[in-house]
Amino acid sequence: MSKKYDYDVIYIGAGVGSVNGAVPLANRGYKVAIVESQAIGGTCPNWGCTAKYTLDAPAQLAYRANQFSHIYGGNILHVNWKRDMARKHRNIDSGPATGMEHRIKAAGIKTYMTHGTLLDNHTVKVDDQKITADKLVLVPGMTPHHLNVPGTELTHDSRNFLSLDDLPKRMVVIGTGYVGIELATVANAGGADVTVMMHHDRPLRGFYEPFADQLVKSLEKQGMHFVKSAKVAGFKKSGNHLVVEYGDHQELATDYVLDASGRVPNLKHLGLENTNVKYNRHGIEVNGYMQTSVPNVYATGDAIDSKIEKLSPTATYETKYLTRLLTGETNKPMAMPAVPTAVYSSPRIAKVGVDVDQAKAGNQKHPGNFKIVTKDLRNHMWYKATGQTHVAARALVFNRFNRLVGAEEISGRADDAISMLAILISLHATNEQIENMVRLFPSQASDLLSDF
Amino acid sequence: MSKKYDYDVIYIGAGVGSVNGAVPLANRGYKVAIVESQAIGGTCPNWGCTAKYTLDAPAQLAYRANQFSHIYGGNILHVNWKRDMARKHRNIDSGPATGMEHRIKAAGIKTYMTHGTLLDNHTVKVDDQKITADKLVLVPGMTPHHLNVPGTELTHDSRNFLSLDDLPKRMVVIGTGYVGIELATVANAGGADVTVMMHHDRPLRGFYEPFADQLVKSLEKQGMHFVKSAKVAGFKKSGNHLVVEYGDHQELATDYVLDASGRVPNLKHLGLENTNVKYNRHGIEVNGYMQTSVPNVYATGDAIDSKIEKLSPTATYETKYLTRLLTGETNKPMAMPAVPTAVYSSPRIAKVGVDVDQAKAGNQKHPGNFKIVTKDLRNHMWYKATGQTHVAARALVFNRFNRLVGAEEISGRADDAISMLAILISLHATNEQIENMVRLFPSQASDLLSDF
Repeated sequence: MSKKYDYDVIYIGAGVGSVNGAVPLANRGYKVAIVESQAIGGTCPNWGCTAKYTLDAPAQLAYRANQFSHIYGGNILHVNWKRDMARKHRNIDSGPATGMEHRIKAAGIKTYMTHGTLLDNHTVKVDDQKITADKLVLVPGMTPHHLNVPGTELTHDSRNFLSLDDLPKRMVVIGTGYVGIELATVANAGGADVTVMMHHDRPLRGFYEPFADQLVKSLEKQGMHFVKSAKVAGFKKSGNHLVVEYGDHQELATDYVLDASGRVPNLKHLGLENTNVKYNRHGIEVNGYMQTSVPNVYATGDAIDSKIEKLSPTATYETKYLTRLLTGETNKPMAMPAVPTAVYSSPRIAKVGVDVDQAKAGNQKHPGNFKIVTKDLRNHMWYKATGQTHVAARALVFNRFNRLVGAEEISGRADDAISMLAILISLHATNEQIENMVRLFPSQASDLLSDF
Repeated sequence: MSKKYDYDVIYIGAGVGSVNGAVPLANRGYKVAIVESQAIGGTCPNWGCTAKYTLDAPAQLAYRANQFSHIYGGNILHVNWKRDMARKHRNIDSGPATGMEHRIKAAGIKTYMTHGTLLDNHTVKVDDQKITADKLVLVPGMTPHHLNVPGTELTHDSRNFLSLDDLPKRMVVIGTGYVGIELATVANAGGADVTVMMHHDRPLRGFYEPFADQLVKSLEKQGMHFVKSAKVAGFKKSGNHLVVEYGDHQELATDYVLDASGRVPNLKHLGLENTNVKYNRHGIEVNGYMQTSVPNVYATGDAIDSKIEKLSPTATYETKYLTRLLTGETNKPMAMPAVPTAVYSSPRIAKVGVDVDQAKAGNQKHPGNFKIVTKDLRNHMWYKATGQTHVAARALVFNRFNRLVGAEEISGRADDAISMLAILISLHATNEQIENMVRLFPSQASDLLSDF
């Protein structure tokens, strides 16, 4: 325990990328402080994945039930936005973040609910106070980026949208990453007329292109509009509505613009210029030990420059790793396991591990490194029985030892499929082990594990 | 390959407990025949689990969607029986069994579509023909049992019910095993007024009693009636309806009686009396090698006397094991892995591995052998977000090495939960491995694996 400094470790930011490491560290006897200017929990539990998922769950269930509408006497379910939002507020506003507050308090961590600015490699300014620590961990997170075009101040970001009292009649979504596609899905299920303006000609880069294309087609069938390579030029007010200027002097009237064009690391006013911490526009630079260019300063979570998917589970993994490193429990660099990830649209796309494009690239370098199997799941019993007639395909990637190393799926239950396959990939299960399991029948597992 | 006999192996019965072993055996060059008097595939794909699940899938989705009815403007989904049944026919009638026929044909297996009777330890009578084999495998399956009371001929069995054109207005279900509870659920979702007559005072023996009780309460809320220890005495016709006589001279008018009081092994007319194969009322006696009291005669599937759950996946496992044994690939006795099993009701109960009652019994013998953790999942984020407000509890059983060895759940998605936990149990995953996985968030996996 440090006598030279006020604390052993100060975390800047109280998101899942710090709290999940700070609490066990404090429980091990380290003197820990957390500085947070907005809300304990950060984006995910307050205005990120948890809030989004709570709104999406009834939308997804309606989507799946509507595939059986002929069985339900033609009944089609629509999501009532006001009630869905009221439900979200009940679940979220005093929900998961409260649990994190309790954990912080129980671990004896001091929290400073204000902005923190680094003054040097050991000192953080919090309001008029200076606090010092042997080690600093920077977890500032990210914030929605706003398009740098005229009228950008007329647009809203995901955080605004996730607390929107009334759903606008018409809505334009800028961007086709996770956030854009997911929130467009929720708005569409609520009855809004949604137009998605794509930056490029394909959505969801990083996902297998045929699956991403299938998703767009399915969303179009559900009433969503897509404008490819939209070249958004600006926004303006016109009477009681908005106008989006795009393409070759085209205009689109709308009631609400959601700018989901990206997220940027929260590095402004962090005082990095008072230290030797290196950073770039992708975020804070770290080595394999989550260590910045200043040896006693570390960084984890969304605001680091990293190829790893920026998700709550990866941020949690990083901060837990860092705790093990700081307590001497490990001296090895971090090894991130296979990361499952899903687009919570209806249908969903989800993937884990090595994907088809990676595998193809790998095979170009070393032919035969990977075997890629793409399956149409529509005639698989479980998928058929559960009414997944619209989209259901899956790609499996095997390495040269015939071990499953990657999977990607598009279907109404792709998230569940990938979640399960991720367990097998993480545990390096062999084909023989999988073959020798007794699977629940009928079940998604039974179908997924039947034809390796 | 045998020269003394017509075949190397004859299988009596073409259910999943034979076809899944016969096909790989034939593919290895063995001369194989299958004798089947009813339908290729046997119970499961034709009038068992697959048919039932196909009917149940819209019922379950409606159940889950109806928990969000306030979000859907008060819309309540009801299953239209005729359409659900038409869909079942489309999926099943030319469905999974057809695939099995193709596999049998492709493997060069000779099929005799008639009843087979053993004449001695090597000879089977098929119509007017006698065929012989070096080894016989008995896979006769089971058939619904009928109560031995007056009027029993007025009742129907699960096979009748699963092809019922019109759903009766009132229906009595005799029995509270899997079949009774599952088909009662389907009928209730279709709008029938269902009364379940229980043999005892508790349903679903073998499942954790508090969960089974919760299920009954939930089904009662959904409009189903339960009569405990009903002591059914007989059935009679009265005008255009039926009367169930039960209890202390009580009567209940109904339109249809489903006798789901049990299933019995199909041993009649099998000709066991012409051999030395030992059997009892529970089925054919086998040793750990699936071998009967006659060394060249084996038996697998539902009709054996065994403590293992009689399910399609276990029958498949047994016959695949037997193929490995017959081909010399193994000489060890069969070791059945953890078996996941589910009651496909709404909500569902599912379990795998060591259950709470087994663990309690184990602890009585050797205190501290097992640790039992029972959790109310209602406040877990994923369960809350997906609207599982009615019933959601889970029991986890750990052995003294703190390794997960059993799990049981009641919820709208208990089957999926147990399916996933079964993988971890099968792979003997350690807590450390589970802790080090990156789970999809939000997802059922994330909630299930968060608090080991």
